[in-house]
Amino acid sequence: MEDHIRFNEQDAVLDLLDQRKLPGVEERFLCRTTADVVYALQTMVVRGAPAIGVSAAFGCAVALAETHGRDWQTSLPKKMAAIRQARPTAVNLAWAVDRMEALWKANAGLGYADLLACFIAEARRLQQEDIASCKAIGRFGLPCVHDNDTILTHCNAGALATAGYGTALGVVRAAFERYKGIKVIADETRPFLQGARLTAWELAKDGIPVTVACDNACALLMSKGLVQCVVVGADRIAANGDTANKIGTFGVALLARHFGIPFYVAAPVSTIDPATPTGASIPIEERTPLEVTTIGAAQITPDGVPVYNFAFDVTPAELIAGIITDRGLLKAPYAEAIQALF
Amino acid sequence: MEDHIRFNEQDAVLDLLDQRKLPGVEERFLCRTTADVVYALQTMVVRGAPAIGVSAAFGCAVALAETHGRDWQTSLPKKMAAIRQARPTAVNLAWAVDRMEALWKANAGLGYADLLACFIAEARRLQQEDIASCKAIGRFGLPCVHDNDTILTHCNAGALATAGYGTALGVVRAAFERYKGIKVIADETRPFLQGARLTAWELAKDGIPVTVACDNACALLMSKGLVQCVVVGADRIAANGDTANKIGTFGVALLARHFGIPFYVAAPVSTIDPATPTGASIPIEERTPLEVTTIGAAQITPDGVPVYNFAFDVTPAELIAGIITDRGLLKAPYAEAIQALF
Repeated sequence: MEDHIRFNEQDAVLDLLDQRKLPGVEERFLCRTTADVVYALQTMVVRGAPAIGVSAAFGCAVALAETHGRDWQTSLPKKMAAIRQARPTAVNLAWAVDRMEALWKANAGLGYADLLACFIAEARRLQQEDIASCKAIGRFGLPCVHDNDTILTHCNAGALATAGYGTALGVVRAAFERYKGIKVIADETRPFLQGARLTAWELAKDGIPVTVACDNACALLMSKGLVQCVVVGADRIAANGDTANKIGTFGVALLARHFGIPFYVAAPVSTIDPATPTGASIPIEERTPLEVTTIGAAQITPDGVPVYNFAFDVTPAELIAGIITDRGLLKAPYAEAIQALF
Repeated sequence: MEDHIRFNEQDAVLDLLDQRKLPGVEERFLCRTTADVVYALQTMVVRGAPAIGVSAAFGCAVALAETHGRDWQTSLPKKMAAIRQARPTAVNLAWAVDRMEALWKANAGLGYADLLACFIAEARRLQQEDIASCKAIGRFGLPCVHDNDTILTHCNAGALATAGYGTALGVVRAAFERYKGIKVIADETRPFLQGARLTAWELAKDGIPVTVACDNACALLMSKGLVQCVVVGADRIAANGDTANKIGTFGVALLARHFGIPFYVAAPVSTIDPATPTGASIPIEERTPLEVTTIGAAQITPDGVPVYNFAFDVTPAELIAGIITDRGLLKAPYAEAIQALF
C-alpha cells in the first residue's frame, strides 16, 4: 500500500488512489493542475496529515509543470500558496510546501526544467522519509503494546494517511509482527467514515484482525474490558503536547482516562509545530454540512436542519500517555520533551 | 404527532408510521398479524420504550383478532409470548404484554368478541396514559432547564418514541414553552440515526431550534460551552437507578460529568423495573451487523470485516443528576427514591 500516492514524471501528473470511493471501488484520481491538487486535498481524495504533506510536495511539482516554463517565477508563489491554504489544521501541509519553497530559494539560479527535477526529487525524498518515519514510529511504539492487546484506533492513521505503513497503524503493524494475539477495534469515525472504510480496508488487506464499531460504542467496549490501549494519529501537535486529531479523539481520550486505559498519539516529528504554543491556537476546520447530512445517495437529516461539522478536536496533553514519534517515545512533561527535539 | 400509532378497529389492524423511512418518506406500515407486529418491533418500524409498549398492547389485540375466535384460548398465549420476546432490553414491552395478560386473567369468563373489545380499550387507555405521562414528565423536568439553555439529547426519546409528546423531548417541549432561548443539539445516534432522522424531524416540525451533530462531536461541543444540560430517555431503569438507553448514552454521561454538565434521564415509572437490581442484570440486545455496515444503499465497510452492534449501554446511577418521571423528579440515592414509588 505504498503506491497510493504516485507521481508520473512523463506528464507531471500526481496520481492518487481516490480514498472517497473506498472500500467499494479502487479508482485513481489524476491531478494535472494546481486546481486539481487543491480539489483533491479539500475533498479528501487524499487525507491524513503525512499523506497531505507528501501530496502537497508533489503538488508543487504539478504547479510548476503547469506553467510549461512560462512566467513561472511570477505565478509559482501564488500556486504554492493555494496548495498551502487548501486545509487549515494539519501542519504537515504548510511544512511540506515550505520545504519546497526553501529548496527554490536555496537554488534561485536554476531554470525551469532543473527546478522541476529538483522539486520531483525532493517530493520523492519526502515520500521515502515518511515511510521510514512510519517504520520508526512502529518500532518506538512497541513498548506501548503487549501480547493479546486489542488496540482501539480512531479515524485512519494508516498507510493511506501517510506515504505508507502508517503512524497509529504503523504501531499496530509493528505490534502485530512482534506480539501474538494483537487485534484492532476501528471506530467508524463519522462523518467521513475513515475508520469503517479505510482502516478496516487496509488492516483486512494485511490480515490483521479488525472489528468496526460505531463511535458511540466506545464507553461500552472499554467498560467490557475489550480495549487494552488506544493509539491514534495527529494532525498537529502543539509545543505543549496538546494534539489536534480527527473529531472524536478528545472524547475517546477522556473515556480512556476514565477506564484507566493508556491513550497514545503516534506521529512523525514533522507533525509537531513548535510555533503553536498550545491546542488553543490550532485552527479547527469546519467542513461542509453535506458530509453529515448525506451518506452516499441517502439524505439522513430533514431539509433545513443545521448541523455541526467540526473536522477536528484537540486532546489536552494531560490525557496522553505518550507521543510515539519517529525519533522516540515522548513522555510528559511534553513541553520539555518537545523543546529537546527542536 | 400523537397519531403515529393508530389502531383500526374495523379490521383490527395496527397502523404505524414507518420510522425506518423518516425523514425522507412518511409511509404507514400495517400490522395485520402477530408476525407483522413482531417484525415491526424487531426491525424498528416503531421503536422507543414507551412506543414499543403501546404498540405491543395493540399488538395483543391484533394477535387475538387474527384467530377470528377459533382456538384462541390455546393460541393466544403463544402469540403474546412472541410479542413479549420481540426485543429484550426495553422493559415496557414485557410490562405492556403483562398488563394485557392480567386483564385477560381478571376477565377469564369473557368470550372472544368481548375480550377483543377489552384489549382494544385497554391499549387505548395505555396510549392515553402514556401521553399524559409524557406531559407530566415535561412539567417535572422544568426545574432542570433554564432560559437560554441548549439541551443535548441522544437518540430519539420524543413523540415518536412514545404515544406522543416524548420523554426527553417532553422535557424539551415543556421547557421551550416555558423558557426563552431553548435550543437542542441532537446527536445523530449511529447506527440507526434516530437523532439525525427522528429527533431532528419532530423538533423541526414543532419549530424548536435543533442542530444535528455526529456522536463523536460531543466532547468538543461540551468543551466549547455549547451544552448546558443533557436529557435522554431510557429503555430500562434498574432498582438502583442504573439506566439502559441507546448505545452511546454512557459515553455522553461520562463526558457530561467531566465537563460539569448535569445529565438527566426522563422516563415514565413504567420504565423502572424494580425486579432488575442493577444495570448488570439488564440484557443488552445485539442487532444485525447490517445496521452498521450499510447506510441506505451504500456499504461502508469492506466485505468480511466484523462489527460490534450492541444496541444499548448502561449508564451507572452515580452519573445521573436526576431521573425525571411522570410522578416527580427522583434524586439520588435512587434505590430509596425508587423503592418509595413501588
